[in-house]
Amino acid sequence: MRIHWLLAALAIPGITLAAEGMWTLDNLPAKRMQAEYGFTPGGDWVKHVMLGSARIAGGCSASFISKDGLVMTNHHCAAECVEQLSSAQKNYMNDGFMANKREQEVRCPEIELNRLEQIKDVTEQVKSATKGLDGEAFKRAQDAINARLSSECVGSDKDTVRCDVVNLYHGGRYHVYKYHRFQDTRLVWAPERAAAFFGGDPDNFNFPRYDLDISLLRVYENGKPAVIKDYFPFSKNGAQDAEMVFVTGQPGRTQRQLTLSQLATLRDTGLIPRLLQLSELRGVMEQYAKTGPEAARLAEAELFGVENGFKVFKGQLETMLDPALMKKKQEDEAALRRFVASRPDLKTRLGGAWDAIDRVQQAARQLSVPLTMVGRGRGFDSHYFQYARMLVRGADERSKPNGERLPEFTDANTPELEQTLFSTAPVYPDFEKVTLGLSLTKMRESMGADDAFVKQVLGKQAPDQFAAALIDGTKLGDPAVRKALWTGGKDAIASSNDPFIKLALAIDPHARAIRKQFEQDVEAVEQKNSELIAQARFAQQGLDAYPDATFTLRMSYGEVKGWDDAGKKIAPFTTIGGAFERDTGAEPFALPASWHKAKDRLNLAQPFNFVTTNDIIGGNSGSPMINRNGEIVGLIFDGNIHSLGGAFWYDGRINRTVAVHSGAITEMLGKIYGGENLVREMTAH
Amino acid sequence: MRIHWLLAALAIPGITLAAEGMWTLDNLPAKRMQAEYGFTPGGDWVKHVMLGSARIAGGCSASFISKDGLVMTNHHCAAECVEQLSSAQKNYMNDGFMANKREQEVRCPEIELNRLEQIKDVTEQVKSATKGLDGEAFKRAQDAINARLSSECVGSDKDTVRCDVVNLYHGGRYHVYKYHRFQDTRLVWAPERAAAFFGGDPDNFNFPRYDLDISLLRVYENGKPAVIKDYFPFSKNGAQDAEMVFVTGQPGRTQRQLTLSQLATLRDTGLIPRLLQLSELRGVMEQYAKTGPEAARLAEAELFGVENGFKVFKGQLETMLDPALMKKKQEDEAALRRFVASRPDLKTRLGGAWDAIDRVQQAARQLSVPLTMVGRGRGFDSHYFQYARMLVRGADERSKPNGERLPEFTDANTPELEQTLFSTAPVYPDFEKVTLGLSLTKMRESMGADDAFVKQVLGKQAPDQFAAALIDGTKLGDPAVRKALWTGGKDAIASSNDPFIKLALAIDPHARAIRKQFEQDVEAVEQKNSELIAQARFAQQGLDAYPDATFTLRMSYGEVKGWDDAGKKIAPFTTIGGAFERDTGAEPFALPASWHKAKDRLNLAQPFNFVTTNDIIGGNSGSPMINRNGEIVGLIFDGNIHSLGGAFWYDGRINRTVAVHSGAITEMLGKIYGGENLVREMTAH
Repeated sequence: MRIHWLLAALAIPGITLAAEGMWTLDNLPAKRMQAEYGFTPGGDWVKHVMLGSARIAGGCSASFISKDGLVMTNHHCAAECVEQLSSAQKNYMNDGFMANKREQEVRCPEIELNRLEQIKDVTEQVKSATKGLDGEAFKRAQDAINARLSSECVGSDKDTVRCDVVNLYHGGRYHVYKYHRFQDTRLVWAPERAAAFFGGDPDNFNFPRYDLDISLLRVYENGKPAVIKDYFPFSKNGAQDAEMVFVTGQPGRTQRQLTLSQLATLRDTGLIPRLLQLSELRGVMEQYAKTGPEAARLAEAELFGVENGFKVFKGQLETMLDPALMKKKQEDEAALRRFVASRPDLKTRLGGAWDAIDRVQQAARQLSVPLTMVGRGRGFDSHYFQYARMLVRGADERSKPNGERLPEFTDANTPELEQTLFSTAPVYPDFEKVTLGLSLTKMRESMGADDAFVKQVLGKQAPDQFAAALIDGTKLGDPAVRKALWTGGKDAIASSNDPFIKLALAIDPHARAIRKQFEQDVEAVEQKNSELIAQARFAQQGLDAYPDATFTLRMSYGEVKGWDDAGKKIAPFTTIGGAFERDTGAEPFALPASWHKAKDRLNLAQPFNFVTTNDIIGGNSGSPMINRNGEIVGLIFDGNIHSLGGAFWYDGRINRTVAVHSGAITEMLGKIYGGENLVREMTAH
Repeated sequence: MRIHWLLAALAIPGITLAAEGMWTLDNLPAKRMQAEYGFTPGGDWVKHVMLGSARIAGGCSASFISKDGLVMTNHHCAAECVEQLSSAQKNYMNDGFMANKREQEVRCPEIELNRLEQIKDVTEQVKSATKGLDGEAFKRAQDAINARLSSECVGSDKDTVRCDVVNLYHGGRYHVYKYHRFQDTRLVWAPERAAAFFGGDPDNFNFPRYDLDISLLRVYENGKPAVIKDYFPFSKNGAQDAEMVFVTGQPGRTQRQLTLSQLATLRDTGLIPRLLQLSELRGVMEQYAKTGPEAARLAEAELFGVENGFKVFKGQLETMLDPALMKKKQEDEAALRRFVASRPDLKTRLGGAWDAIDRVQQAARQLSVPLTMVGRGRGFDSHYFQYARMLVRGADERSKPNGERLPEFTDANTPELEQTLFSTAPVYPDFEKVTLGLSLTKMRESMGADDAFVKQVLGKQAPDQFAAALIDGTKLGDPAVRKALWTGGKDAIASSNDPFIKLALAIDPHARAIRKQFEQDVEAVEQKNSELIAQARFAQQGLDAYPDATFTLRMSYGEVKGWDDAGKKIAPFTTIGGAFERDTGAEPFALPASWHKAKDRLNLAQPFNFVTTNDIIGGNSGSPMINRNGEIVGLIFDGNIHSLGGAFWYDGRINRTVAVHSGAITEMLGKIYGGENLVREMTAH
């Protein structure tokens, strides 16, 4: 349920509506909540909930669960840190990690935590900045106003303040989200992967389920645990059947408001090619893992993301091929267009938006392969290349005024970028040769062996040869080398002999040109016209709709509830005892030794995982599930298989969120992992 | 261009029609040929052409090219034999194979060659046998009449005669095809893979092209080269630009006459899952190949088929997602249905056919995973398992009367089956562990870890564990063991302790049940109603249409011609010199050393590969391309990328067949490979 970056919702008639919606915290559907559950969120309650929630900037959700900066998220959200702290000698993914004392807590090299503190509407400023502009000019003006607004919001506190301009309702509203930024985030507890990801890929997105998918982190400021005023203590009993529950997290991306032609482009140029490439990478990693324990350790880290993404995109593709979805989308689009056509004022102003978007889809399709492979660098799948591009472009961009830079290099974004660039996480050359060689091969395959760019890159070498030569010659695995190049700016880059720097330099003009062409020919047109469609929706529905997900804080309300799966009743809860029944002793159904040792002490009847009707999507991983009192009753870590269609619509009959029960967390943290002190900290009100 | 077994054509208005069509030899479009090219095929000409053409039963085309039984096909059609004759010590795929004397020609373990000698119409007999029957009864009656008709046709000569009942026009016509059967087929010449498959996967299905994709075989009878009366000698000059040319080969399968709902089922349950599985297998094989030279040898053999299939299915999927295709299909189907509705007699008799087919698509979709994984055994991807299933089922089936057996076990099919079963080709246990482990994992993934059948098979073991245990315990790699079990019949099977035999026995009831359910609920309904649609087409168009491809002999006529590829003019010929220009020295663009050594002696201006408008599809690989005089002017080995859409329609503007020029074959066979005597044999009239 981490975000998958490929690309707010209409009611679906005839389908249960309750629980649909990923609502911004400044526009909660208070009347509906009151009508359906007799609960109205008060201003203080909302503010407290906002401040108790958190975002992991790399693509997950989290929450504060103690006054001393303790943070709860999923194991799979902290896994990259757990892997980065591991080595050939010490495998924390297999063995788990526990800091019994504060001084044993270890800093994660690349985790940035954000806490939303303020939302400000800047719609008028953004719109007037881009008014009357088209294509490239539109895009540049938008980048410039975004850079200015976020810089103004950050002020002089860029180490602790982060501001993002958020595009809601596809251009219907622009808000500045102001966050407190925590970059010193330390690992406190991670159970063994066998416990966190019990059932592995076969059980992923399925239910019944038995996963202890949790990690605890702690945010530090000035070398000490941060003092946190708003946090969610653990509830006494955890979630109950039919109880109203809230999820506050960061859903990454939904496509519920795309036009029909955009959906078809997404299917053909996004989902299908990505699925095919993920499948192949999966095969490569599975086989690589068999060559030795260290290879297995590295490949497994990659495999989790690959297999998870594969399942997500496959579910999305299946939903998109379902005639029911397309029928619904066609009806909705036709109804909105009829509404616009029936109102002369709207017709003149907005009526052409759909056709305008349709017209650029051909360009979107033609650009998709070079944009993906070259523009976004997927043809160069290697950490070294990512560093090299950041360094090469960064040197160039940072010499420009803030408002004229590519968005990822603005002052507001520099701290996160530098955290990545200076990370002490190790890079593994042999492993990188595999991913780079494969991706170069796929670039050649999709662009053609006779493509001029492909020939420029590979010359007469085979992809694997070329990848090995680059990697054998690079020094970019060393963070000090990267820091020196970053600090040295354009001169350092120009005089570098590092093969990756030279490669990134050589291809940058072409890569930028493709990006620019896509931005002006496709993106700008889609954005301008999506704004118009958003206006049409506001005219039709008012603000009683939620925007598509944008990896910003949203609330979903719902309830604990099983579902009927094609005639089979699925109960909402599993128990700890059920996990032992499912244990076969063979991966991925082998519970860790620590569990068997503690089995006699455990309450086997304790609810373990459960499902609710909340409307979530990738990025919501690690979201707290709270009750009306703002207490933790569960921890979101997944959705059922039907939730994957949630990218395009919400079907309350079968779409379910999957969570770890709060009672299971405290039970096992205390009795299996020796974390009684942490349990005390989490349960203190 | 070998067949890919996943599943006859309407004119496409507005598109060049010339060359469209894969015509049965008893229904050539003589008038069209005369009108377009001033050529009318006479009876003797057709008979001679039929007898000069051949089929490789495993999935390719071929031709006789000398009176002494010399046979020409593609390198990739004989590759399995070349691999089976290779070992860790001697790699004929890398080094090539040349028998300079007859006694050096080596028998291929699994190549059966068929020469069509007679076509007989049995439509009335088949239809009256199934008249008034439905579901299971329909299917059984059809199997029984097929078994009887082919047995009657074979008579007592089953070692040299083969008869198949061929279903043409989806049940519009049933013909018995009587073949001469050659099972003693020996390898004469195969160039290095680097020459045969120069450009590898990147160039596959592309043009310009530079492949010497040829192998020569020789059929033997009674230990001596077979005496062949009808054969195609090589022409003096080979194909010329704009020349009329004929392809006589065995196109495997097209889906040009499926209904809209069948096409959607094919896309969702056939193409997409198969593509995803092939991608993963591809990744596994790529990485397996890196673990050593012997691993590379084994993996590369698998990879060719995997990558080729991947490209085919990807091209098909892209065609199917093209709105132009669907629009055309919708219009055609609507027009035919309107035609039926306008004729009261047809309306009553045939009007319900489309809806009847639509109604069983849901069942087809639901059954597709178990049918594929269990029914067709794709969940058990191992030669050992294939042998085991053949042995287990064969013992059972052979105890029944011929007409009551599963079709693959009838008397008429026994010789080909026994050739496979008793093959001396080696089986490689370590390699089989990889494919079996992966396929079991995919079975668990697609059917679910909680599926009762999956649990029955795996018990508490992981797929890789289970695969290794089976393979470590089996003796089925030994052809003598297989022969003993085959000869021993039911008793031998029942008392066998071989783990694969026990597995095949244990799952056979379930596997048969799924197959039966699919046959009665889906296949029988589709067949019955496809027959009705065929009748509607005959009523609309007469017999001026060709049937969908059925891996039986067809003729396509066309001409040598380049095409316009989105504004870029593609010339019809490449030259031998062009291959040297394309050589980079790095795989797959490295010409073999033998070529460089001979370069000075070669005519670099000699046409090498070329394209024609002929309408072909997978299975046509190895087809002879002949001129009006019945002389070889080329050897079909591929189609361009646009030809992949040929599964669904023929677009004469861009669909092209790719062939090796006959002049390049003689030039290189003589000057590079020392095959002057073979050149003399092939060119003797």
